[in-house]
Order: sequence, then structure tokens, then C-alpha cells
Amino acid sequence: MRTLLLAGIFLSMIIPGFAQQEDSIFIKRISDEIFSNGKAYDNLRDLTKKIGGRLSGSPQMVKAEQWGLKTMQLSGADKAWLQECKVPHWVRGGKDQAIATESKMKKNLNVLALGNSMGTGAKGITADVVMVESFQELDAKRDQVKGKIVFYNYKFNPTFISPFQAYVDAVKYRGGGASQAAKYGAKAVIVRSMSHSTDNYPHTGSLRYDSAYAKIPAVAIGLKDADWLSEELKNKNVSVYVKTNAKFLPDTTGHNVIGELTGSEFPDQYITVGGHLDSWDPAEGAHDDGTGVVQTMEILRAFKALGYKPRHSIRFVLFANEENGLRGGNKYAEEAKSKNEKHIFALESDAGGFTPRGFGFNATDEQVKKAQAWSTLLAPYGGGDLSKGGDGADIGPLERAYGIPAAGFLPDPQRYFDYHHAANDVFENVNKRELELGAINMAALIYLVDKYGL
Amino acid sequence: MRTLLLAGIFLSMIIPGFAQQEDSIFIKRISDEIFSNGKAYDNLRDLTKKIGGRLSGSPQMVKAEQWGLKTMQLSGADKAWLQECKVPHWVRGGKDQAIATESKMKKNLNVLALGNSMGTGAKGITADVVMVESFQELDAKRDQVKGKIVFYNYKFNPTFISPFQAYVDAVKYRGGGASQAAKYGAKAVIVRSMSHSTDNYPHTGSLRYDSAYAKIPAVAIGLKDADWLSEELKNKNVSVYVKTNAKFLPDTTGHNVIGELTGSEFPDQYITVGGHLDSWDPAEGAHDDGTGVVQTMEILRAFKALGYKPRHSIRFVLFANEENGLRGGNKYAEEAKSKNEKHIFALESDAGGFTPRGFGFNATDEQVKKAQAWSTLLAPYGGGDLSKGGDGADIGPLERAYGIPAAGFLPDPQRYFDYHHAANDVFENVNKRELELGAINMAALIYLVDKYGL
Repeated sequence: MRTLLLAGIFLSMIIPGFAQQEDSIFIKRISDEIFSNGKAYDNLRDLTKKIGGRLSGSPQMVKAEQWGLKTMQLSGADKAWLQECKVPHWVRGGKDQAIATESKMKKNLNVLALGNSMGTGAKGITADVVMVESFQELDAKRDQVKGKIVFYNYKFNPTFISPFQAYVDAVKYRGGGASQAAKYGAKAVIVRSMSHSTDNYPHTGSLRYDSAYAKIPAVAIGLKDADWLSEELKNKNVSVYVKTNAKFLPDTTGHNVIGELTGSEFPDQYITVGGHLDSWDPAEGAHDDGTGVVQTMEILRAFKALGYKPRHSIRFVLFANEENGLRGGNKYAEEAKSKNEKHIFALESDAGGFTPRGFGFNATDEQVKKAQAWSTLLAPYGGGDLSKGGDGADIGPLERAYGIPAAGFLPDPQRYFDYHHAANDVFENVNKRELELGAINMAALIYLVDKYGL
Repeated sequence: MRTLLLAGIFLSMIIPGFAQQEDSIFIKRISDEIFSNGKAYDNLRDLTKKIGGRLSGSPQMVKAEQWGLKTMQLSGADKAWLQECKVPHWVRGGKDQAIATESKMKKNLNVLALGNSMGTGAKGITADVVMVESFQELDAKRDQVKGKIVFYNYKFNPTFISPFQAYVDAVKYRGGGASQAAKYGAKAVIVRSMSHSTDNYPHTGSLRYDSAYAKIPAVAIGLKDADWLSEELKNKNVSVYVKTNAKFLPDTTGHNVIGELTGSEFPDQYITVGGHLDSWDPAEGAHDDGTGVVQTMEILRAFKALGYKPRHSIRFVLFANEENGLRGGNKYAEEAKSKNEKHIFALESDAGGFTPRGFGFNATDEQVKKAQAWSTLLAPYGGGDLSKGGDGADIGPLERAYGIPAAGFLPDPQRYFDYHHAANDVFENVNKRELELGAINMAALIYLVDKYGL
């Protein structure tokens, strides 16, 4: 590209009336402030590089909470505090290992124990591998899996346009595959990573054991190794040695980090915006969900910098324990209910810090229609696709407790599962402008909901 | 992100009538074909990793042309050929160097000679630096720059939502800065790179010398070094040694690579789609414009794989010499005119292989309105923003020769200038799904124009 013969995108602003013009001017001020003076990227660097992965119960979780509280104060919260909650304390316990043996050949496989899974014990497990591509195939092979390792090789479907659809389609093998295989006497499971990626990083994430069956070890395997293994298994016998060290320690104490801008007209009515502070351990939790965390505080910082006085109180929340328990989200809703707080809306950013596409609303048709009238205000910033469906795991309990409308920020979904729960979910894979543009769209939506309600 | 509470995006398909339903079904077939069997990513790996940077006149240019012809044939062209054109032959001539000296301190600066610039000679140039932030400031300092090196430190404006706007705003210092400084007797110029990036890669690109003034050497400097230099210059004297080795060799022979699918109804009426095959030398020319090249051939491959017989003849063109001459685009238009060919539409992809946003049209209001009726067909694939304004450098001559409508593919613009003309424009920075989604949207638009005209 030599000279600009490209334009058009993000340029058009349709301004039908005075109120929209006023709103469009204020949203441009938000945009200028965040693009010119934004702290989200620097904050993300601190969180990911100075603290790193921060699984519930880890020492990094404690550091992240203190960092979050301090950053919330520096961002200009009228008040900021930690809200205590019990969190599960699962530990990986060391390096996960898998070695395949096929006649005399040995090959290391790139694996990661699934979150909440049990370790193999010090000796590891060695067994022949039975590959299945579905639960139906597992059922058909039920007589062949006793004492074996089951390898779920169900692929992300490339024809879904959004990889989130492929995730919904495939994640049952990660979540429930271990117990389904244990039902038929398998000793362990290997699950193809939930990704379209072109590399070999394994992608962890939580499983749920069915208490009716043995809690057998479970690992995710990188896609290249999954392809290799499935190719070998076509006409050969392959045995795999797996060793994982994972276990649960007793529940420990974690915290939601909460900042508040007090409302000028309705100080006792709350709008909540947040992301989750915990992350899986193999990486830095950059897109999941460091970006949601720093975007949340960037909205606060920008509102303060612009002297914006919200009508309602706005709560900026860094939730604890989204990944393997949701205890933070539950605690936030419980305490709100027990204090009889009034909540009117909640927004979460937990789909990565990619370029904005829009927001999904869990709301009535009428509310969605009202929000869609703001589409022209958000479109210049890339976030104009406002659709029904979507919220966020952490705000779910609040939403259900109050029956209030909620929304999830929807960045472009194509790259998310390249990094999700894998070792490459690092700061370097976040683009500063895309991150900031997400914060701009989120701030704009909060401003509009604060002004007009939903 | 633990479980899917996000959805909505890319899911809605509005199908008002039968024709749209038929179109929507065919576009989904294109999408399934490209996502399932696409060759664009593998082709891009070959072009970038086996050939690399391929500036006009370089040995890599020749290799790329042969590769392009072969890949065009493998992609299923009814016929494919090379169209000869003369191309300029600028060579960098070795490693560019700059060393700053401030009292006793020396610092290497990360620089790249600008394309089409003249070298310093073997001894290099050493001179004190005068920093300016604009041509106005240069005019004001006209008496201070004689015998000096002028440092243009005009920054990419962060408040433009699209970085392409920032590029248009700033690129005059790269294109014309050398001659403006030479007018006042400067010996060389250093130009702040055209980027928002957070790294220190210098970004090259072409300049144009005004023949009225001396052709002085010119380099781009990485942003971190630019910031360092401007900080030093606030209250210190800094001299810089610059050595560049660039020169022009005599014009040489290059080629456009052309493939054709012959039309079933109007074989003598042409739709052109293309990207440019040449690229700057410091990197692999991945986003600029390897992605446009492989997307172009992917449309051909998908049409053949689906058995699609276009009504009009479709030309798939890998243009020569976009970066520093536009000789390929000019040649293509000239030969079309001289053969009295009928051309009806042209499309170019030269803004990177990022996730699609839409297309910009250089067309009449009526034509743009007609295209906008297709927005709901493209929106599920992310490319529904159809706006007036935009085409592509290579198709410009054709468009002007014929007065035909043309369009430029508009991917999301936020990351483009992180890589543009810099050493990090490599294969690893292209996402497979985003690349393929671009090809899907382009194929869909070509299908619609072929079917309905514009």
C-alpha cells in the first residue's frame, strides 16, 4: 500500500438530532481522551508482565488483587474496596508430561492438565490409546476403552463463521469427556485443544467431574500433536505415558476488586461494568481477561478525566475466580441482594481485547430495540453491531438475581481461540489501538445507559 | 472466558426474498469451501517464507512472478500468463546506519533508507540535527537548516479513529520532506515512521524528489528512537552520522501475473480483482500485499472448486511494482485500452489481511446504493460496511481509463500500520481465519457484481 486510496471506514457519523449530536460529541471526547491519554495498555503490561498468570488461590492472585485496588484508586474511583469471597484452590503441581510410544518410536506430546482435574500420581499412567471423535463413537466403543486412555479428537468446525460457535459445539468433550470415559473404565483422557490455531500450544480450561464415576486425569493436547496422534492411530497401536500433578487444596480467600463512581442523581442505583481478574496459569491471561480488567478501569479513568458525573452510581468490578468456580460473580450478586441494593444494568468484557464489533444483549426485545437506536453512535468506533444474546459469566448471577438487562462486549472473534487458555495468551498478542477502541465503545455504552436507561 | 455466554455476532442473516436466499446460500458455500479447503494461508507461507521481500527489479521479484503464474494455474485458471512491463530498479545496497552523538555519548538509531532515495556515499554524512514538527516549522527555521540534517518528528495523530486517516495526514513528510529540506540546504533528512506502533521498527516507503532541488538522502526512524532523539534535542546539541547505500539501476523487466476465468455469457466483458506482488525489501511483504495476492487466487480456486461459471470473464491479477512506480497497474490499463477490451468493474485488496469490515466504492451514488443493498448478504461474514470512497492504487489507471466503478477491500484498519513497510510484516503476523474471511467477502462481492452488475 503506497498511498491512501482507501477510506470510508469509521468515517461516517449520522446525526439525526440534537441529543444524538450532543451524544456523538461526548463519545468523541471519550475517544480522544482514551486514544491520547489512555492507561489501559500500560496497566495491562504491569498486570501481565509484573504479575502474570493468576489462578484462584495462587500468590499471583493476591498480588493482582492489591494491584487492582491500587490501580482502581489511581484511576479515580470515589471509593474502592476488596470484597471477600471463598475461592477454590486448584494447583497444577508441576510440569504436565505425555510421551507416546509406537513400536520403538517415542514422541513427546505437548499437553496441559485440564483445570480442576486430578493428577495421575507420581508414577503416571501408561496405557494404549483409543481415539474417538464423538460421544456416540465412545458409546459404540464402550467395550474397548476399559483400562485405556481415551483420545477425544473432535475438531473445531471451520465452517462456523464465529469460532465461538465452534467452541460451543466442541467444549463438551473438555467439560464432560473425562467422566464419560470413566463410565466405561478408561484410566485417563486426552482432549484435542479447543482452537483453530496453526500452532501446537495445548489449551487448558475447566472440566466437571460427574460424581457417579472415577475422577480420572485429563489433559488437553496441542493441535499438531493431535493430528500426529490421530494419523498414527489409523493403523497402529500407540500407547501413551501421562503424568500430571494436579490437585485441590482447601478453599482459600479471594476478593472481587470494586471501584465506584457515585451517581449524582441516583446514587443508590447501580450500573456494573467488569471483567475477571483471575486467569489460567500457563500464560499471562492477557486476552482472558487482562484486557477486560484494564478496559473496565480505563472507563473509570476516562470518565474522571473528562469530569463526567454519572447520574447513577457506576461500579467497576474486577471479578474473582471466573475460570474455575465463578465465586466472585456469585458473591457480588449475593451481597447486592443481601444489602437490598438497586441494580439496573451490567456489562462485561470477557471475549478478548480485539477490535470491537458490538455488544450482545441479554434483554427484552424492547430493550434491545432501544439499544439498537444507539448503533449509529457506536458504528464510527467499530462497535455498532448490537444484537440480542450475550452477557458475561461474572455478571450472570447479578442478572438472574435482579432480572435486569445485561450486555457482553463483542470484539472480533477470529483470533480469540488462538490464545484462549494457552501459553501464548501474552501481552505481546494484544494490540494497543484495538484494546483502547474496546474501552471507548464500552465507555460509550455505559454513558448511554446512564443517560437514557435501557 | 469459561463458557459461552457470548454470541450474536455474525449470526443474523436477513433473507427478504428468493434471490437473496439463493445468494445467501451460494455465499455460504463459498465460505464453507474457503474455510474448509482454503489454500490462501499455505500459499502465503510459500510466498513469504520461500521467496520473501520482492521489490521491483530484485531476483525475488522474478521468483515471485514464476510462483504466481504456477499458483494461478494450480488454482484453476482457464488461462494464465505474464504481462511484461518495465519496472524501476531501486536497490538499498546494504545496511542503513545512523549513529547519534551527544557530547560523549553515542547511540545507534534504528533507521531504513526511504524507497527511491539516494545514498549518502561511502563516507556517510555527519551533521547536527534540527528537529521540526511540520513544514511550517521548517519554513520558520529556514535559516538554521543549511548543512544540517532535518528531523521531521510529526506524529501519527492518535485521535483519528482509522489509522489510515493518520497516514494521510502524516505521509507528506515522508513523500516530500527531503526536497523541502533540500530547498533550504539541508544535507539529509530523518523522518519519524508512519506508525502508531509500540515497537522501534523503522517503516520505509517511497519518497518523491522535486527535481528543482538536490536529491538528499532520507531515512525513516523507529518510534522509540524518534522519541529519544526529540527528548535529547529539547536542550542538547545532537549530531548524527547517517550512511545509506541506495541507488537506481537502469529500468528492468517485470510482469503482471494474470489468470482468467472465461465468462459464460459475456466472455468479452471483464471484471478484474487483484493485489500487488511486489513488496518492500526489509520484510516478507505479508500484509502488504501478500495477503491481497493470495486472496485473489483463493477466489479463483473457490469458484473453480464450486463449479461456478461466471457470466463475465474474471481476471485475477497480481500487479507488478505498486510500491515505487505503479508500472504494473499502468500497463494493465494501457494494454486493455489498446486491445479495446470491455471492462466493467475492478476490486483490489491492498489494506492487509485483517478481519473484514467492508468495501469502499469509487462509484456513483446510485452504484453505491445498489451495492449497499448487498450489505445484509455480506454482514454475516463481517464485510457489511459498504461505503462511498476507496479503490486501490493498481486498479486506479483502469478505473480512470474506463470510468468504471471500482472498490477496495476494507479490513479492520487498526493493526495495518504496525507492520506497513517494516521488518515485522511477516507471515507470523497474519491470522489464517482473518485472511480467509477476507477472501470470502471478496469472492462474495465478485459473485454479486458478476450476477447483478453495478
